[in-house]
Amino acid sequence: MYLHTLQNKIQELKKLKIQMFQRDFLLTWEKTYDEILATLLVAECFKEMHKHNISFRIFDTGLGISIFKDQSTRTRFSFASAVNALGLTAQDFDEGKSQVAHGETVRETANMISFMADVIGIRDDIFLGEGDKYQRQVIAAVEEGYEKGILAQRPTVVNLQSDIDHPTQAMADLAKLKDYFGGIDRLKGKKIAMTWAYSPSYGKPLSVPQGVIGLMSRFGMKVALAHPKGYNLLPETVELARKQAQESGGSFEHVDSMDEAFKDADIVYPKSWASFQVMEQRRDLLHANNQAGLKELEKKCLEENAKYMDWECTEEKMKLTKNAKALYQHCLPADITGVSCKQGEVSKTVFERYIPHTYHQASFKPFVIAAMIYLSKIGNPAAMLETMIAENKNRIKV
Amino acid sequence: MYLHTLQNKIQELKKLKIQMFQRDFLLTWEKTYDEILATLLVAECFKEMHKHNISFRIFDTGLGISIFKDQSTRTRFSFASAVNALGLTAQDFDEGKSQVAHGETVRETANMISFMADVIGIRDDIFLGEGDKYQRQVIAAVEEGYEKGILAQRPTVVNLQSDIDHPTQAMADLAKLKDYFGGIDRLKGKKIAMTWAYSPSYGKPLSVPQGVIGLMSRFGMKVALAHPKGYNLLPETVELARKQAQESGGSFEHVDSMDEAFKDADIVYPKSWASFQVMEQRRDLLHANNQAGLKELEKKCLEENAKYMDWECTEEKMKLTKNAKALYQHCLPADITGVSCKQGEVSKTVFERYIPHTYHQASFKPFVIAAMIYLSKIGNPAAMLETMIAENKNRIKV
Amino acid sequence: MYLHTLQNKIQELKKLKIQMFQRDFLLTWEKTYDEILATLLVAECFKEMHKHNISFRIFDTGLGISIFKDQSTRTRFSFASAVNALGLTAQDFDEGKSQVAHGETVRETANMISFMADVIGIRDDIFLGEGDKYQRQVIAAVEEGYEKGILAQRPTVVNLQSDIDHPTQAMADLAKLKDYFGGIDRLKGKKIAMTWAYSPSYGKPLSVPQGVIGLMSRFGMKVALAHPKGYNLLPETVELARKQAQESGGSFEHVDSMDEAFKDADIVYPKSWASFQVMEQRRDLLHANNQAGLKELEKKCLEENAKYMDWECTEEKMKLTKNAKALYQHCLPADITGVSCKQGEVSKTVFERYIPHTYHQASFKPFVIAAMIYLSKIGNPAAMLETMIAENKNRIKV
Repeated sequence: MYLHTLQNKIQELKKLKIQMFQRDFLLTWEKTYDEILATLLVAECFKEMHKHNISFRIFDTGLGISIFKDQSTRTRFSFASAVNALGLTAQDFDEGKSQVAHGETVRETANMISFMADVIGIRDDIFLGEGDKYQRQVIAAVEEGYEKGILAQRPTVVNLQSDIDHPTQAMADLAKLKDYFGGIDRLKGKKIAMTWAYSPSYGKPLSVPQGVIGLMSRFGMKVALAHPKGYNLLPETVELARKQAQESGGSFEHVDSMDEAFKDADIVYPKSWASFQVMEQRRDLLHANNQAGLKELEKKCLEENAKYMDWECTEEKMKLTKNAKALYQHCLPADITGVSCKQGEVSKTVFERYIPHTYHQASFKPFVIAAMIYLSKIGNPAAMLETMIAENKNRIKV
Repeated sequence: MYLHTLQNKIQELKKLKIQMFQRDFLLTWEKTYDEILATLLVAECFKEMHKHNISFRIFDTGLGISIFKDQSTRTRFSFASAVNALGLTAQDFDEGKSQVAHGETVRETANMISFMADVIGIRDDIFLGEGDKYQRQVIAAVEEGYEKGILAQRPTVVNLQSDIDHPTQAMADLAKLKDYFGGIDRLKGKKIAMTWAYSPSYGKPLSVPQGVIGLMSRFGMKVALAHPKGYNLLPETVELARKQAQESGGSFEHVDSMDEAFKDADIVYPKSWASFQVMEQRRDLLHANNQAGLKELEKKCLEENAKYMDWECTEEKMKLTKNAKALYQHCLPADITGVSCKQGEVSKTVFERYIPHTYHQASFKPFVIAAMIYLSKIGNPAAMLETMIAENKNRIKV
Repeated sequence: MYLHTLQNKIQELKKLKIQMFQRDFLLTWEKTYDEILATLLVAECFKEMHKHNISFRIFDTGLGISIFKDQSTRTRFSFASAVNALGLTAQDFDEGKSQVAHGETVRETANMISFMADVIGIRDDIFLGEGDKYQRQVIAAVEEGYEKGILAQRPTVVNLQSDIDHPTQAMADLAKLKDYFGGIDRLKGKKIAMTWAYSPSYGKPLSVPQGVIGLMSRFGMKVALAHPKGYNLLPETVELARKQAQESGGSFEHVDSMDEAFKDADIVYPKSWASFQVMEQRRDLLHANNQAGLKELEKKCLEENAKYMDWECTEEKMKLTKNAKALYQHCLPADITGVSCKQGEVSKTVFERYIPHTYHQASFKPFVIAAMIYLSKIGNPAAMLETMIAENKNRIKV
């Protein structure tokens, strides 16, 4: 039964035109439609193989390096899980312990850690205008190292969240939608509300909402972006979403009311983020290591946030959605009213009703990351899947 | 020769009635007598296989997660060694680096780290009345996640020390006793003195003495528990030990003098722990993050400890034991008079004479942990051992 | 083609007389000439095998423990890469997290972490007169543990930098020279200038210059050591280099001018280090945890350094070298004028011109470490290399 499912997915994969071998994964919109589908298919195959105790290990040895410039639970464990399942050992590069403090350049560090590394996963989402650039600097460095014969292999860079996109999250979100609605084609015409929500915190990156509108706009969906005045996203990502929505036969609306976005929505994604200006000021204050300024900014920002406490995903708001039954999505952890804070992004009853869905949504992430790495490492991904399924090597002995 | 030993142990294992598949290991007294024996036998087989370069790897890939809420050397390395030997990669979940600070619930975190995890080892021994509960919350969370299809496999939880029991330690202690006296049946009638000892430190958990009396009372031993007034253990663990001792044909005495406990003892286990009241106050002060209160409590507690400086395992006290030759046990590190402190739990000459024994005692721990995991993962543990021995895969190529 | 290269190296290896099985690697001068060559040959084979996707994994499971008493990027990743490639899992022993703070002795800790460890890599370079001693204490401890049957295997200790030598660095430097000049015999008569260089930092260990003169003096090279007055190395290492240079048909000169050392040099290695007296005082202040004293010393030391700001490897100085084309070496990271500091060890143009070389130099380190471990673990290293090449197990599936 599951073997049949796997075979079908591999047949689909074979029909796609992709150029992912030896390529990095930074922004979903740098990947073609077929490449997005291929990533989903491989992730689904891996999830199924894992469930049925078939190893998809492709490496005998090797390192998968992670660089986290921001704290992380699920992305850290998803990355560790993904590289482990492929046969690599996760090795965290912690700048605090390293000689970066001694003035190493990105070029040098990137090469020094890569002599035997196959992947570098990077989370750098705090510094607006810099995270994506940093990832590209790392790529340029290892590319040069490889060309000059310093590195025997070219490590793939996977974006574990930048200032622009959070592709491993958005792809996991998409995988959940595909599963929930029964196919990628079923997303056509569905309305997704990506909306800001109140939270008594500040400084949450813009990359999740940007990633969501930048990806979901490619499947004929009706994308509604909503946030209070001042909580703009990077303009180019909004423009991109608008353009992609048109091209894919969907639509894009940009409104300033949660209610309007929720109206008739099939999916809602209410999530807090910092305002653009706050992120810019925060970046500059962090660079200046201006602790007093940061405290001041946090206070100002929380006061600003507090004006929009009614941007909460309540039962009442959920009633506005399609048949009052929209799928609630969140990248987690959510700020839950009465649970993790006094008042937050979502009411307790709404959040708890959807727990099986949000956890299930999260469960795709390790497999999505593994798929991204696999597709950059294996020249004929469909054939290798067939080989591994035929070999049927058990992950755990039985 | 060693193959013969292995075969004998496997034959013994086959005779036992156990239900350990897919079960957690939290408290030794939740396991049947046969299950305790099975754990010892598998641990002994692994130790022998390791010595003779036979791999007992059962996983091709997978994660073994550890959560340490208290510092640790030997348990950390024992866990890392155990999961590595089974083929898993140890991944530490450090709450400091995680989003727990962002208000994640135990349920959510437990699921988020478990998508590809096979084991979760937890040390949570500081908070009286909470450590064991936390472990059961994690179990409930992953059980629910597994039932709802969020987790493809159900990670086994192994107690690496709670407020109630320290089963990996107590089982290693038991393995040493079995080896030292030449069989589990030889423990019948032996007297073990689990006694408090003076230490210029405070806040040492109660789980080691509780674990020792909770386990050793099941083999017909004469268990003597001794401590100064006020240094009580959890009453239910003392009751349990008393009851088990009776049922197993041994005895249990609870005295307030080290000398009395040592008298004619075959084994002595002198070790410091905090008083019950101190642990309770400390827990509340820690929760309140009351640093001044903690300092104050430490002072008071050390003053209280200082009243019992004569509770030291000296040569003189050792003379009270059976033929003056009791086996000295300790979970390490010990507070050694004139070595690691001015005055402590044990005199230098006693400690040093028994170093080969205490180190040997510690050497069982990684294999005990590996056995606990193995028995929860392999449906027919005896048959799988036979298969691995027949395959004779070298751990290191020769 | 590369198989032919590999076969040649293995034939060379077969001719060497070595006794490295079950031995540690602390100081290059404790190894015979043949043993140094064997280490290079195995490292070169591993580098070639890695490049051509042939796994050289010799362990199915096992731990490779690292103890870093000083920060590290490249050595940390080199060690992690090396043990991973051999099939071990790197496990860092962080004293901060451990019970060392509870007063464990070296003997106890060394045994407690080694029950299933095959290697222990140690970096302890800050404390003059202590780092090497500490490594030997660890060796004595695990040796004793092994002899007494506590440890089933005896972990190999590899010096990842001590107060005396930095053998993994010096061996990587030598591997680069062998490659650059086309053979170990071609080093005869070449002049290498190991010189102090100015840096606005203090407390850099003496082990790199000591390691370089202690190794390069064995191949008939003309070794020139230069530093300002007061920046002496350990006298015994200088004496050793002098003696070895004579015996190998080379020469050794000890001068107090960078220009003189650079004159007609084939290789220059300009690098900052602290003065001997500073390292001694620093050690004592660190032991006393005298923060004010350390600040004071740093200030004094930087003032002293500042007298020698002209000890910079500039284009002008490079013109003094053989045909103005000496190979520039550095262990990285360098203090580059106008890049990582206002004024430092080397000018920007010199440093950048040699980047491919210094990075290539660094790229040998993981393979050198792997070779050191391999030679201590495999009784017939040439035969095992032949077996692995014949098996041709791919590191990544293709």
